[in-house]
Order: sequence, then structure tokens, then C-alpha cells
Amino acid sequence: MNVFERHESEVRGYCRNFPAVFTTAKGAWMTDQRGRRYLDFFCGAGVLNYGHNPEPIKRALTDYLAADGITHTLDMYSTAKARFIERFHDLILAPRGLSYKLQFPGPTGTNAVEAALKLARKVTGREQVVSFTNAFHGMTLGSLAVTGNGFKRAGAGVPLSHASSVPFDGYLGSDVDTLDYFEAMLLDNGSGMEVPAAVIVETVQAEGGVNVASAEWLRRLRRITRNNGIVLIVDDIQVGCGRVGGFFSFEEAGIEPDIVTLSKSLSGYGLPLALVLIRPDLDQWAPGEHNGTFRGHCPAFVTATAALEHYWQDDRLNRAVEHKGERVHKHLQRMLKSHGVEGAVRGRGLIQGVEFGDPGLAGRVSQACFERGLIIETAGIDGQVLKLLPSLTMDEATLTKGLDTIDAALAATLAAEIGQVA
Amino acid sequence: MNVFERHESEVRGYCRNFPAVFTTAKGAWMTDQRGRRYLDFFCGAGVLNYGHNPEPIKRALTDYLAADGITHTLDMYSTAKARFIERFHDLILAPRGLSYKLQFPGPTGTNAVEAALKLARKVTGREQVVSFTNAFHGMTLGSLAVTGNGFKRAGAGVPLSHASSVPFDGYLGSDVDTLDYFEAMLLDNGSGMEVPAAVIVETVQAEGGVNVASAEWLRRLRRITRNNGIVLIVDDIQVGCGRVGGFFSFEEAGIEPDIVTLSKSLSGYGLPLALVLIRPDLDQWAPGEHNGTFRGHCPAFVTATAALEHYWQDDRLNRAVEHKGERVHKHLQRMLKSHGVEGAVRGRGLIQGVEFGDPGLAGRVSQACFERGLIIETAGIDGQVLKLLPSLTMDEATLTKGLDTIDAALAATLAAEIGQVA
Amino acid sequence: MNVFERHESEVRGYCRNFPAVFTTAKGAWMTDQRGRRYLDFFCGAGVLNYGHNPEPIKRALTDYLAADGITHTLDMYSTAKARFIERFHDLILAPRGLSYKLQFPGPTGTNAVEAALKLARKVTGREQVVSFTNAFHGMTLGSLAVTGNGFKRAGAGVPLSHASSVPFDGYLGSDVDTLDYFEAMLLDNGSGMEVPAAVIVETVQAEGGVNVASAEWLRRLRRITRNNGIVLIVDDIQVGCGRVGGFFSFEEAGIEPDIVTLSKSLSGYGLPLALVLIRPDLDQWAPGEHNGTFRGHCPAFVTATAALEHYWQDDRLNRAVEHKGERVHKHLQRMLKSHGVEGAVRGRGLIQGVEFGDPGLAGRVSQACFERGLIIETAGIDGQVLKLLPSLTMDEATLTKGLDTIDAALAATLAAEIGQVA
Amino acid sequence: MNVFERHESEVRGYCRNFPAVFTTAKGAWMTDQRGRRYLDFFCGAGVLNYGHNPEPIKRALTDYLAADGITHTLDMYSTAKARFIERFHDLILAPRGLSYKLQFPGPTGTNAVEAALKLARKVTGREQVVSFTNAFHGMTLGSLAVTGNGFKRAGAGVPLSHASSVPFDGYLGSDVDTLDYFEAMLLDNGSGMEVPAAVIVETVQAEGGVNVASAEWLRRLRRITRNNGIVLIVDDIQVGCGRVGGFFSFEEAGIEPDIVTLSKSLSGYGLPLALVLIRPDLDQWAPGEHNGTFRGHCPAFVTATAALEHYWQDDRLNRAVEHKGERVHKHLQRMLKSHGVEGAVRGRGLIQGVEFGDPGLAGRVSQACFERGLIIETAGIDGQVLKLLPSLTMDEATLTKGLDTIDAALAATLAAEIGQVA
Repeated sequence: MNVFERHESEVRGYCRNFPAVFTTAKGAWMTDQRGRRYLDFFCGAGVLNYGHNPEPIKRALTDYLAADGITHTLDMYSTAKARFIERFHDLILAPRGLSYKLQFPGPTGTNAVEAALKLARKVTGREQVVSFTNAFHGMTLGSLAVTGNGFKRAGAGVPLSHASSVPFDGYLGSDVDTLDYFEAMLLDNGSGMEVPAAVIVETVQAEGGVNVASAEWLRRLRRITRNNGIVLIVDDIQVGCGRVGGFFSFEEAGIEPDIVTLSKSLSGYGLPLALVLIRPDLDQWAPGEHNGTFRGHCPAFVTATAALEHYWQDDRLNRAVEHKGERVHKHLQRMLKSHGVEGAVRGRGLIQGVEFGDPGLAGRVSQACFERGLIIETAGIDGQVLKLLPSLTMDEATLTKGLDTIDAALAATLAAEIGQVA
Repeated sequence: MNVFERHESEVRGYCRNFPAVFTTAKGAWMTDQRGRRYLDFFCGAGVLNYGHNPEPIKRALTDYLAADGITHTLDMYSTAKARFIERFHDLILAPRGLSYKLQFPGPTGTNAVEAALKLARKVTGREQVVSFTNAFHGMTLGSLAVTGNGFKRAGAGVPLSHASSVPFDGYLGSDVDTLDYFEAMLLDNGSGMEVPAAVIVETVQAEGGVNVASAEWLRRLRRITRNNGIVLIVDDIQVGCGRVGGFFSFEEAGIEPDIVTLSKSLSGYGLPLALVLIRPDLDQWAPGEHNGTFRGHCPAFVTATAALEHYWQDDRLNRAVEHKGERVHKHLQRMLKSHGVEGAVRGRGLIQGVEFGDPGLAGRVSQACFERGLIIETAGIDGQVLKLLPSLTMDEATLTKGLDTIDAALAATLAAEIGQVA
Repeated sequence: MNVFERHESEVRGYCRNFPAVFTTAKGAWMTDQRGRRYLDFFCGAGVLNYGHNPEPIKRALTDYLAADGITHTLDMYSTAKARFIERFHDLILAPRGLSYKLQFPGPTGTNAVEAALKLARKVTGREQVVSFTNAFHGMTLGSLAVTGNGFKRAGAGVPLSHASSVPFDGYLGSDVDTLDYFEAMLLDNGSGMEVPAAVIVETVQAEGGVNVASAEWLRRLRRITRNNGIVLIVDDIQVGCGRVGGFFSFEEAGIEPDIVTLSKSLSGYGLPLALVLIRPDLDQWAPGEHNGTFRGHCPAFVTATAALEHYWQDDRLNRAVEHKGERVHKHLQRMLKSHGVEGAVRGRGLIQGVEFGDPGLAGRVSQACFERGLIIETAGIDGQVLKLLPSLTMDEATLTKGLDTIDAALAATLAAEIGQVA
Repeated sequence: MNVFERHESEVRGYCRNFPAVFTTAKGAWMTDQRGRRYLDFFCGAGVLNYGHNPEPIKRALTDYLAADGITHTLDMYSTAKARFIERFHDLILAPRGLSYKLQFPGPTGTNAVEAALKLARKVTGREQVVSFTNAFHGMTLGSLAVTGNGFKRAGAGVPLSHASSVPFDGYLGSDVDTLDYFEAMLLDNGSGMEVPAAVIVETVQAEGGVNVASAEWLRRLRRITRNNGIVLIVDDIQVGCGRVGGFFSFEEAGIEPDIVTLSKSLSGYGLPLALVLIRPDLDQWAPGEHNGTFRGHCPAFVTATAALEHYWQDDRLNRAVEHKGERVHKHLQRMLKSHGVEGAVRGRGLIQGVEFGDPGLAGRVSQACFERGLIIETAGIDGQVLKLLPSLTMDEATLTKGLDTIDAALAATLAAEIGQVA
């Protein structure tokens, strides 16, 4: 570990909570340099929805490399990209009745968000963007301006402008429909809130604490934005690609966003890739108006295509996620009850969170899990939510093992605390 | 090609100038789906300094994948990253007497630039950043604010603030030292220019038109920034990694920047990777203050390590680049003379540019090259510069072939134009 | 009128609603060049609380001019300023137990607001300021950023930054305490709302439509701002100087703002004067850090001093305003009832507004009043509120005359409309 | 003085250099409360071009007050305003062949500048404004953004955006035409400088250190702005109204700005008044788009009209100023020579400055003058310039007296310093 402490920047973070040096990984398991194995309930923050190094995708990748398939093309044409576009259209868009143009920005989530915001501003001629409390959209200046986290925002070193934050679904308690507030401000030309170019929303705020927007709230948001000529951007980077069941997280609500951003699990293998889906009439980019070096990262097109072909030919994965999600949800509720711990369980599909009454508890349970060989993260502004992100393809036995480990970790944490108090 | 026109966004650019669909590539050559081969004098905008799919690097990558080496780790520790850090320290930093902390941001150049700007603002507590006319640093809002290109800037859709542009070396003609202007404004508290957090500079402006800063100018810039407590950021994304000879483009000037950004050819294989080098006392990041999903992209660590081990154990590549660079430079000068064409040749090492008197000529020559099977780009705000970026490892015969093609393309273009006039 | 149409900018506004050319004025009455007299229920937007050219003040002014009292001193000392400061301290601050430092900015309201915002930002080191829906604070860029009116904001021609607007008391209906929303956002570091430097508020939003903040809401706002180290600025430019009864409009709520801005009726005679009151420990200005040419406008000091001495030696004016305010309020309520017109009456002291169910009615009634020789303005984002601002010193008979005119104008307007419908 | 120290904000400035309490003033003389008289070479920073309380203007004012002329009208019509507009047109605009619409903003210089910037942004649809090093345009946020002084700018407490500063005439020495730089940046779409909405310039930078733009430089600036569709704003607040000879300071250069701002000496009597002159086709304001309470300050219209009628019926004042200006200029040059002091004399008409080689000397001479009964200010970012602003109407004997006092003060200061050194 010395090499990291001596030479790597202090900015490194997750390694402080999970201080192992990883070497190999397969399926639900990661192995460190000492040969210790860890069950992965984190999936690299949602990048590894199909687990580590899944064989069908790996094969496609190694075949491509062996044949000296072209690796890097900027936005020149390649057969790898053509193949991906065709399969994405045939397997994802067409069956859902969706029609989008595809933009490949630089291959990180924040590049996709920046592209989406730019385009929304261009087509509307407006500057302001509305985002939500506890949103997370990325670390470059445009994305950071629509991110709620005060600590991250302060890192900008400059004021973050042209954006305003309004309350997410449920933010002011279950009695208040937060869109009442947004709509009132929007319709009143004296409110001080301009009609924005866009509203950007995550259907489930993952980093923000596993906050779930209801389908009804999303539909109302869609109506408000449509009626006022506002571009609706769904940032599906963390909860798209099947995380909540459907390929897109907004399918359940039956809405069609104007722009969708995807990244993380899109390549299916951990290779950087990002995608912006654009309602065709909004595709008003001039050629080259937004670019980026690695937007033609062909190995990632190849793995992404393999992922589509292997997992999205039918709805089996979708149904499996819904089924497992319910199991996890109920398990967590029972766990709270059986330990007599105050808290709430939230989530959709295989993103589930436990917000404990004691805000520090999630972090301590995460640590106790790590000691027991389970990688599990916290979320929320104070890390007050234990966030479960197992791979979508995890078998039931492994899932059970992981859930049992959480149970044991919680029990041990509570026991230790009672001990301390006594 | 239909699939792209039907489904890909209008933002696609290079494909319009080079309308082939590429499938494989090796060394200096790319092959399209019809089996036609193209000599590559573009290198994916500087990503492929060692050519396409170089064997030594490919072997390291396929071995890693075969062994199920972990692919994606965010900023958790991995043996792949440890290995890269060690080799980067031993082969690059230590021999040059440099001491930097390493930050791995999201794996694109603009992510690295955004991180550098944030950090400079944090450590100085100032907001303004000074950049140069015709600079290019990226498309996300922070990077775009320090980019000169008016067309790209307009794409922001919001005003770009907290940055000001001053003239690059040579901008006002050879008689004016443009740093006179910058220094006068800086030292005068009535000038309206604040002391900036940072100055960000490319030693050779690649996108901006192959504009070369002299060593003396860079040294004076280093003195001015040091004397005024300003962080000097060298953006070496396009001309680092050996493009001008040394691993860093600023070695020749003998300066030590406070922060250096690298990406493009860093992974050596076209895999996305980016790196920020930070003077140790400036490494004042709080853990997690700047993050990004794909900052732990292990296959790229593996290929980057292989590239260092294969090409940077000694100075052979450095010397070869200098030698070939000189050859190219002289060839281009002779070419202008022999064709009686007005123009200027600029460059260092294997980035060389020809600015023709007729600003539209570079684009027409580039097209004529493409027709003859040579990929070569233009640069500059009006595309008025023909930019040569052959791979550093190209053998002399192939280099000659490429140069001869340019000659032929220029001759044909000029002949056609005389024909038209007549 | 030709001279105005030929030579004055199109920006002129009130003259379009009240197209008379005024020559003289006395007490409650204005006279135009044709000798027609108008009863003034507008008071120059709150500048003439003591009526036109009140004798006691006029005498002080003409004596001062006759003696060649110094007219203009910038912020050099003058006996005129000394006298004003002493009387302001003795008659206004001391009896109310208030302790403020006095800053004389440029003599317009917006200059005072800009000074207040700058100072709040300086002492807190923060940039953001929170203002309220339908607030009005001025037309220069700093003040405009905290003003709600979308039409005025658009006039900026640049984005208005470093400010955010939250709902004023009653904005979301009587069931919602809008400070719940503000406090929730403020205390949550993930909300995307930074802790602001300041909150700026009008206790009664005059331009915004005669919206009245309750005393309890103001007290809660004071608690929230105090607990979070936020500077509370009360902009008392339009409703201070006795307009709602007490010299300060916040006296009734029993709160002490950190900064108070005054202007309009401060000079008592229509001469430009503005004042910023600063909690002593916040007076962290460096000498000359904020300046302005006309901040030492001595004739205005003289008239302001005379106004204090004549009207504020005891609470007679205060009580008279409360009494007359109640009369007006009840009259307006009766008027709505008797005409069977939907609407609401709002106000405190001698600022009273009628918001009709039909938003266009207020403007038509104002026009009908003008035709009957009564000057009365509308307010609110759509001019939907009839705003009564009679002078505080108006005698009961004249007040009655004005109210009767409104009655008659309303009756005639309604009759005309019934006629049109029929 | 106690009352000021106890109750007035620390922001007060000039009173610290000139610690007298003034009571009356007449012509060139001010009197303090102890009866001491001071000769005024400062004129309230250019407000009192006709001296203190000039009789012809005073008479008009007191007559108006005695007749209960209306004092305050917002932007309703008044005979006082009509009269002013007519006289301004007939005596100032028409004889000079100028055609402008008149806008009366709030009655301070910064209100006029803010209005001018807003309008330029509106009519061009652009946001950026270019100003010059060491410019001074006011303290509200819009004006401050185009002001060079770093101390004043820091007082904003927020970043000052949408403006950039370029070098004023002579800034880089007499060999460099600073407009070369501006024009190069402007015409290059890769420079990072956008085509601005407006350029704002003072023909003589008064606060900035009595920096004089040459007629040729102003003409070139007019050509550049015209050719590029940029609004040229001349801020004539301090050096208009005859200060340099002609009513407008730009007359000598023979240019016609698109917008002109006036204030300070416009009312002729120290009463707050401001005016924006607008090229008729640029008068694209919507009614009420920019407003301000005291824009209908009738006593100031009355005095301003009297000033026009008394001083601007012919060119006698103009010629007198030129003559006296030359005298002052030569006197100062002789003074430097006779005392063997390094320095430079700059100025036009009756604004003249001495920049001493020793930057602290100006301040010490100013103090020595004050001790000798002469009020004279310093200018420039470090107060390094002694600035002479005697009234335009000062008789020759009094002018001589003031110049002799400066001589004596300089001699005494130098002698004291030699004494100290010895």
C-alpha cells in the first residue's frame, strides 16, 4: 500500500474505506493480493451490473483484440460502432417504441451530462437548468452546478451558476407534493425563477441516498416540462441498464424524456463508455460542436454490443431483477424489525437503501461488512444510508450470503455499541 | 454508412472528412470495411503515438484479461494501478528529477483539466484562470472557459466566466513579447485583471494551429507565475508522451510546472486514461473532493505500464523523434519552396504544421491526401494549417511514403486550381 | 407633450398612464400646465410621505440655500450631515433601542441595496443572497439579481447570479409556511442551496403587489438567519419612514435586522437621499471601499433633519397612520362587497392594495380614477393590484374624497363593462 | 467631529484626508465650522464645474421652490423636465450636429452607466463589455465590472463577470498602439475574446490617474467599434460638462459615440442628476424596462437648465477653459523643473495631473496643500497623481493663488524630506 500513500494524491477516497489491493475478479467476487475474496454488493458504483469479467462479453472483447480490431477512432466510422448502434436500436429502442439519436461524448458520465446540458441550452436559447436536492450528476463544472452535495460543490472553487435546485419527490415530507412549489415558481413571472432550458432528474437518486421518485411524480414532471417547453433530461447513468428492472429506469412511469444520459454499465465490462440519447428534433448540434478524444472507444462498443446481445434479447433479466429486488427489500425490512432498529428501506429493483435513525450507523455497518468480506457502500449527504448494489446476475444463494452478512454485521455493530454504552 | 446517418447525432465530425468505415488497424495502417488501407498521419489526434495495436502492449492487455484481472476499481487500490505508479515514478519522474503526486481523474483529457483548475483555485483561494489565444483544453464547462475557439465556446450555451485569455507566444508578431502585456496587467492593481489562480498553457498548441512557444517564453512565464504565486499548469495531453521528443514537452525549456495534465497517448493503446501530476505541497485535495466513475480503469493501467516499459527505458525513442521531426520539418519547407507556395512550417518533434498563405488550401490538400490513402488533419481556427501527427514509431520508409503523398496531393490540388482559374 | 415624444427615450413609463405635464404641487394636490388639479394617492411611489412641498421642510431648505450652505461634499464632513446624524440618532434610533452605524451611499435606493449586499458578502465571505418571490430592490445589476420581476430581470442582458429566490409569506397559500421550505434547504448540505451571505426582505412588498409578511413569519425569518449566521437585510425603502405606522416597518414584529436600507421619503421633500443602517460589528468597510459622488447631498440632509424634527418628536403621526390605515382598509372591503366584486384587500398602515379577481380590472380603475383627477397606481407582476399610497399627513376629508373617487371609478368601470357585455 | 466617528460607517473616506467640518461655500471657496476658508481645487470630484452656489443658478432654484414647483415626478411629465430637454437640445445637441434620445436614470453616475450597459447588451444580444485598464465607472455591480481598481473590485464580494479589460492608450508605453492588441483579439475567432456588446471609455481617466486618450486613438476606437457592430459608450461623467473645454470631452476628436453618460456637473449646483444619451435607433427600451425612483428630480432639472442658459449660450467658457488649462499645464511643468523633481504633467483643459517619480509624493503634497488651505485630491491606483480640478469659472488671480499654494506645498514637502534624510 505504500506506493499509494507515497505517490497518489490525497483525493483518493474509496480505498480508505476498503483498504485492500485488488488483483482479480470474477462474477460477484473480488480477490485481493493476499488471496482474500470479497463478495461485491457495490459493483463499482453501478458499473458492473453483469458482475466482474462476464464470460460472454470477455470473449467478444478478446476476439476483437486478437483480430487487431481498430481501438480508437474519435468520431470516424467503425464497424464496431455500427454494430453497437444497430443492436441498441433493435434490442433497446425499437421494442420500447423509442426514437432517439445517439451521441457518443467522451466516455464518462459527466461528459454525457455536459453534452446534454449544452444541447438543451442551445435548442431553447435559455441558460438556467433546474435540478433537484441531493442530485448527483458529475464533477466537471457544468455537471457540478446541477449536483446538490455541498462538499463537492465547494470543490469547484468558483460559484456554480445558471442552475437552481428544487426539492425532489418526498423532500418536504409525504404530505407535500414538491412539484406544487416548482410549478408555482415557474408559472409566476414575478417569482425570480426563469423558465429553464432543462430539468435534469434521476428517477432514483443513488448517491443522494437512494431517494425514489414515484411514477406519478415523474409523470407530473413530464407534463410540466412539456407544457412549458422545457427539455426533460433523465440521467440514467447509475440506475439505467437494468438496475431497477427495465433497461431504462423511467419505463415504469411510462414517460419519454427528451434526453437520456447513459454510462457506467453500458459497456457491460467496466470499459469507459457514455451515450446521450436525443429526441430527433432536438439534435441541433453543428458538426464537431461538442467533441472529446475517446468518444470512439471501440473495445467498449464491442463489449456493450455483447452485453445487449447476451442480456437484453428478452425480459428475463428484467423479471429476475424485479424478483430479487423485492426479496432484498423485504429482507431489509425484516432485518430492521428483528433488530428493533429505527430506519427506513427505500429502493427499486436492485438498488436498495437503508436509512437508519442513527445517521452514523450505516458507515459502521459498512465497515463491519468489509471485515466480513462484503463490499457495500453508504450514500446520502452524511453517508447515512447503506446502499445495496449487487450485480443483477447474482445467483440467489450468493445474494442470500450477502444479505446474511449484512445482518451479522448489523448485529455485531449494535452489540458493540451496547457494550460501549454499558 | 446508412446506420450512422439514420441514428447518430449530427454532432459527428471527423467522419465527414474521412468517410470510411474502419475495421482493423496495425502500426501505421488502418483498414476499412472494403479492405482499403490508409496510412495514418493523424494518430487519433495524438492518442496513438506508438501506432495502432502495438504488439508488446497488446500482449500485456490480453494476458491481463485472460487472467481475469480486475477491470474496474474506482479509486480502490489495485495491483494494476500500483504497478503503473511505480513504473511511472521510476522511468519518468525520477530520471527527470521531478516529484509529483498522481491523481487519476475520469479518463478523458477534459476531466484532467477540470481537476487541475479546481485544485489551483482551491489552493490559491482565487477564481480567475488565465489561458492563451487559440488554446484548446476541452469541452466541459470548466475546460471550455479556457479554450479559445469561439465556435466551441458558443456551444456552452452559458457565459464562460472566471477565465481570461491573453496572447500566446508570437500572437502579435515576432517583435512583440506577449508576456510584456500579461506582466503589465498582472502587476498593476488598477488593470482590471485579477491575479489569477493559475495560468494554463500548451507548449505547442496543437488544435490551435501548431503554434510553438519558445523555450525562453516558457521560462519567462514560469518566472512570472512563480513570482506572483500563480499555479502554472502545463496541459501536455496532446504533445506530451513523447510527441515532441521528451516524455514531457516542457523538458527542453527546463521548467517545472506546478501541475501537468496527461491523457491521449498515456495508455499507449487507445484506452481511456488520464493523469494529473501535482506538486506535492499543492496536493490539498480532501478525500473524494473530486471523483469520477472510470478513474480506476485497470486495463488502461496495464497498457500504460507496458508502454512505459517498452518505450521509455532509455532515450532511443526521444532521439528518433527529434531526428524524424527534423526530417519532416525540412521536407515541408522544401515542399513549399519547390511548389512556389506561400506558407510557413512550424512544429517540434513529430507535430509539424504547414500554414499556407491561402487559408482554404490545407483543407483541400487534406482531402486530396485522403483520396490517396493518407489520413491527415487540419488545425487552426479556420482549418488553415495542415497538421502532421505520424506515429513516433513509424519507420523511415513509411514516413517518406506519407510525405511523398502530401507532396503529390499538394501538386494535384494546385494543378486543379490553376486549371479552374484558366 | 411633443418635446417628450421627440426627445425622451422610449423607456419612460408612468407618463403613459398619467399623461399630464405637472408644474406645481402642494400637500395632497398636483397641478398640471393646464391648471387641472389632481389628488395624489401615489406619492411618487412612496417618496412624498409628508405630501408635496410641506412648509416646515421647505422653510429649512430655502433658509439653507439662502445662506449658501454647502451643497455637495462627497463624504467630507458637513454641519448639515452632523445635524442629521444627531437627530436621526436621538429621535429614531435611541428611542427604539436600536444601535446602527450610518452609511450614506449614492442617493438612490438601489445604491443603498448594492452597498448592503456588498457588505453582507464581505463580512460573511459568502456570495449567495436569498431574496423572495415578487421582491423589488432596484435596477442596477446587484439589486436586480434579488428582484423577482421577470421583465425587469430580462433587461439585465446578462444572467443574474449569486442570488436565489424563495417563496414569500403566503406564496403557496395560507396552509404552507414557506419558511419550512427555506429552512429545509438551508440545513441540508445536499440541497444544492448554499448558506447565503444574506437574506433581503421587504416586510410589505409594495411593487410586488402589496404582499404583507406576518409578524410571526418575520420573527421566524430572524431566528433562522441569526441561527445560521446569515445577515438579515430589511429593505425599508418604500414602506419605512412611517408608511405603515412606525418609522421602521419591522417595529411591529419586534425584530432587529442586521442591515436596513432607507431612501424615498427619508429626505421628506423628494430630494434624493439614501441611508444604510449597519449593525456596528458588521461595519467592516475599509475607507472608500464603496463610494459614490452624491453621497454628501447637503440640501437633502437639511430637509431630512427638518422632517425628523417636525414629524417624529412623538408618536402622533404613527397613531394617525394606523387610524387612517384601518379606515382605508375597511372602506376598500366595503367597496368590494357593495359592488359585488371578487377581490382581496391587503396592507398595513397607509399602503393598501386591492387585488381584484379580474386581473385587468385594477388598471382600468386606475385609468378611470385619473380621468376623475385622482392619481393611483397599480402593482403586482401583471398590474393586478390597485395600490393606495396617500400621504401620511392627508386630512380625513381629503382622504374621503379620494376613496369616494375610487368607488366612483370602480362603479363606472363595472358599468361600462356590463354595457359592453350587453 | 465626534458625531461622525461615533455614528458614521468606517466607509467614509475623503473626510480622513480633509478633516474639516464644512458649513458654507461660495464660488471657489469653502468655509468650515471654525470659519476657516479653503480654496477648492477639487470641485467635489468634478461636480462643481461652475463653483459653489453660483448665483444665476441659485436664483432659478429658489424661485422654483418658492413657487412650489413640483419636486418629484418619477418619469411623469413636468414643465421643469420639458424645459431642460428643450434647452439641452437647442444649446448642446443641435449646435454640435448631434442627435440623441435622452434617458433620465436614477440621478447618480453609476445608474447612468448601468442603464447604458443594459441597453447595449439588449440591442446587440451580446453579454460581454470591454473596458480599459484603470477605468472608473461606478460602484454598483454592473459598473464595477468595468472598473479597473482592484481594491474597489474586491469589494463586490462576488466575481465580476461579462466584462474584460484591455489596455488604455499609452498603457504599454508610447511605442505600442494598444488598439493593435484589441483589434487582433477581436478579429480572431480563436482568441477567446468574444465580440463584445459595447466598449466603454473615458476620454480622460480622471480617477485612474489623469490618463489622456489621444484624439487619433479615440478615432481608431470609433472605427473598430463601428466596423464590428459594437456600441461605443463614452462615460463623460467626470470630464464632460466643459471640464476639458467643449461640453463633451469627445468633441475634439470629432467622434460620435453611440451612447454618452453624463452626471456630476450636469445639474450645475451639486444636485443629483444623471443623463444617458442614446443614438435614436438604439433606443430600444421597452417602457419601464429600466426605472429608478429619483429620475424625475425637478429641482435638478431647473438648475441644469439655468446652467445651460448661463454658461453654454456661446463658446466663451470653452475658450476660457482651454486658456486656463494651458496655463495650469505649463505652470506645473515649470514647477517640476524648478524643483528638480522627476515627474510628468498630463491633462486636458482644467483636469490636469502631476505624476511624480516618487509615488508617495502626491499624497504628501496634497496634505501640505490642505494645511495651507487648498483642497486638492490625488488619483491613480496608488494615489500617485496630484489631480487639479479647479472650477471652470475661477478667475485668474484665484487660480494663481492655488497654483502658488501647490508650489509652496511641494517646496515644503521636499524640504521636510531632505531634512529627514539629513
